[in-house]
Amino acid sequence: MKHTLSVLVQNEAGVLSRIVGLFSGRGFNIESLTVAPTQDHDYSRVTIVTYGDDAVIEQICKQLNRLINTLKVMDITGENSIEREIILVKVAAKDEDRSELIRIAEIFNAEIVDVTAKTYTIEAMGDDTKIRSLIELLRPIGIRELVRSGKVAISRETQFNIKNYTKLSAI
Amino acid sequence: MKHTLSVLVQNEAGVLSRIVGLFSGRGFNIESLTVAPTQDHDYSRVTIVTYGDDAVIEQICKQLNRLINTLKVMDITGENSIEREIILVKVAAKDEDRSELIRIAEIFNAEIVDVTAKTYTIEAMGDDTKIRSLIELLRPIGIRELVRSGKVAISRETQFNIKNYTKLSAI
Repeated sequence: MKHTLSVLVQNEAGVLSRIVGLFSGRGFNIESLTVAPTQDHDYSRVTIVTYGDDAVIEQICKQLNRLINTLKVMDITGENSIEREIILVKVAAKDEDRSELIRIAEIFNAEIVDVTAKTYTIEAMGDDTKIRSLIELLRPIGIRELVRSGKVAISRETQFNIKNYTKLSAI
Repeated sequence: MKHTLSVLVQNEAGVLSRIVGLFSGRGFNIESLTVAPTQDHDYSRVTIVTYGDDAVIEQICKQLNRLINTLKVMDITGENSIEREIILVKVAAKDEDRSELIRIAEIFNAEIVDVTAKTYTIEAMGDDTKIRSLIELLRPIGIRELVRSGKVAISRETQFNIKNYTKLSAI
């Protein structure tokens, strides 16, 4: 099962390397990862989508929490979080496909952000299901290039079910 | 100066670890990083925002290109690319701030995606300037939690000025 982990870290040299190294060193999977500064440039938030059974996920969270520079590890999978992803996709724009492309963009509330004689570039935002449906609809038309941000997620305020591995030292 | 690097890689164990390790091992900076699968699950695309002078950036690109499992490294900084980022931000929702929050969301074409008695959660998409302006406007109201995806970027079709480090073996 897929899990979304949100990890708050101090911006120190090598912190991302240690996080990613922990996954590769122990054979844990990373499906997607995003990292960017928070409102305070001394801290970054890493969102990792990984998969494994409950024991594996708990193991990952504990290991992450043990790393120096890690302040907080939360498993914010499912209903207790808001999840989003951006996709930018460049599609072949044959004349006979253009109206279909515009129709797909409308359905997905996507925007056409660049047009050339040969391509349309579409941007869309949504959850994993929406992004995957969009890819499947665009695939037969001809995807030239595609970039996804990977998932970002924030916990809902009602955190009744979120597993929170805040370090005691950070409370 | 900030540069945006787009790196196409094969999905093999440890590939992200080698990329991130290259940066930390040589003291190169990572401001943000995103990685997610492409339309073909055998490949992922990594978007890295880094900074340094031209010599440093060229060095980084060459080193990335030397890594096994790297198929293509592009420096797609600036006008020749379309850049986007998502932000999810949870803000304190005091009664007297609610109308101001709604007004800010409208200006930024942002959506209020979760509301509780104490917080509003806002989602927005844009380029770096837009995201930073939004953060600065929300800061005095009280940011509780914030997650950014980091930049994703796709080259415009007119690639006249993009530095492209495609491996000869991959052409």
